[in-house]
Amino acid sequence: MVKSAATPLIALLVIAGASPVAGQHQHEGDVSLLHELQKRVDAAIVAGDTDTYATLLTRDAVLMPPNGPAVVGRDAIVAWSRAFANAFSFEAYHPLDAEVVIAGNWAFRRAAFRVTLAPKGGGEKLVDTGKFLIIYKREGDGWKVARDIWNSDGPPNNELQRTKPAQAMELRR
Amino acid sequence: MVKSAATPLIALLVIAGASPVAGQHQHEGDVSLLHELQKRVDAAIVAGDTDTYATLLTRDAVLMPPNGPAVVGRDAIVAWSRAFANAFSFEAYHPLDAEVVIAGNWAFRRAAFRVTLAPKGGGEKLVDTGKFLIIYKREGDGWKVARDIWNSDGPPNNELQRTKPAQAMELRR
Repeated sequence: MVKSAATPLIALLVIAGASPVAGQHQHEGDVSLLHELQKRVDAAIVAGDTDTYATLLTRDAVLMPPNGPAVVGRDAIVAWSRAFANAFSFEAYHPLDAEVVIAGNWAFRRAAFRVTLAPKGGGEKLVDTGKFLIIYKREGDGWKVARDIWNSDGPPNNELQRTKPAQAMELRR
Repeated sequence: MVKSAATPLIALLVIAGASPVAGQHQHEGDVSLLHELQKRVDAAIVAGDTDTYATLLTRDAVLMPPNGPAVVGRDAIVAWSRAFANAFSFEAYHPLDAEVVIAGNWAFRRAAFRVTLAPKGGGEKLVDTGKFLIIYKREGDGWKVARDIWNSDGPPNNELQRTKPAQAMELRR
C-alpha cells in the first residue's frame, strides 16, 4: 500500500490569518498540528479505520462526497465511511497540498489527490485524480476536520463512473 | 429565468469567528455583505456576465469544478466562465444556504443548489442538484470570492454526465 508520506509537497503555501493575538510561534505550531492531523486522517481512511477517523472529526462535521447528498454529523460520516471501507481497499493514495490557510479558530487546506482503489468484491482496480477542500476547526489545544468536499478531475465517463450507481458514491475517497 | 431571490433560506446558521476585535455589529454587517456578494455572484453567473463576475473574485481565486483540474487565478476563471457562458444558458438556478461562517478576514458558505441549463447549441435541458463550499476573503471594506468547489448529488450516469466529455466540465455551474 502506497501512502502519502512518500508524496512531495509542492507549492505549499501557508498564509497567516489576521488574528492579532496569533504570533508567529503559535502559527507555526498550528501548521504542524494541521499537517499531523491530516496525516492521521489519511492513514485512518486508507486503513479503513473508521474508529480512529471518528476521533478526528468535529461532532458537527459535514462530508460532501460526489454522487450523493451531504453527510451531516460525525455519526453519519462514520456510517458512510464504514460502507466505503467494506466495499473498497486503498492500493494507493497520494495527496498533493496546494495551500494551508489559518484564520483564528478555523483553517482550510486545498489539495489534489490521486487514488487507486481495489473493489473488495473483486474486479478491476479503479484509478482517479481529483481535488479537495477541507475546513478545520480548533477544539481545545488541537484541530479537527469540520467540512470536507472533493470532486474528480476526470471526464464523467471515466472508469470510476462506469460502475453501478449504488457503488458510485463510495468511489471517490 | 428563475433566480435565487425566490429561494427560501432554510437552516441558515451564522457562526461568529473568534476574532477578539470583531463585535456583534461588525459581524452582522459582514453577514449582510457576504449575502449581498453571493447574490451578485449568482446573478452574474446566471446572466453569463463574466466581466461583473471577475470583479467579485480575488486575484488569486481558485475555481475547483468537477471533471477538470483546478482553475487557478482570476484571469483563468474568467476564461473558463466565458467558455461556459458560450455553451449554456441558465433556465433556473436555486441555491439553498446551509451555513455561513466568519473567521476574521476569511469566511465560508456551505450550500446546496439545483440548476437547469439549456445548451445554446440546442438539445435537451440539463438538470442537476449538488452542493458547494465557497471561501471568501476580506479585501478592504468588503469581501471577495477566494475559493469555490462543488460537486453533483446525482448518480454518475445522470443526464448531465451522458454528454460528451468536452462539454462535461462546463456543465456543473
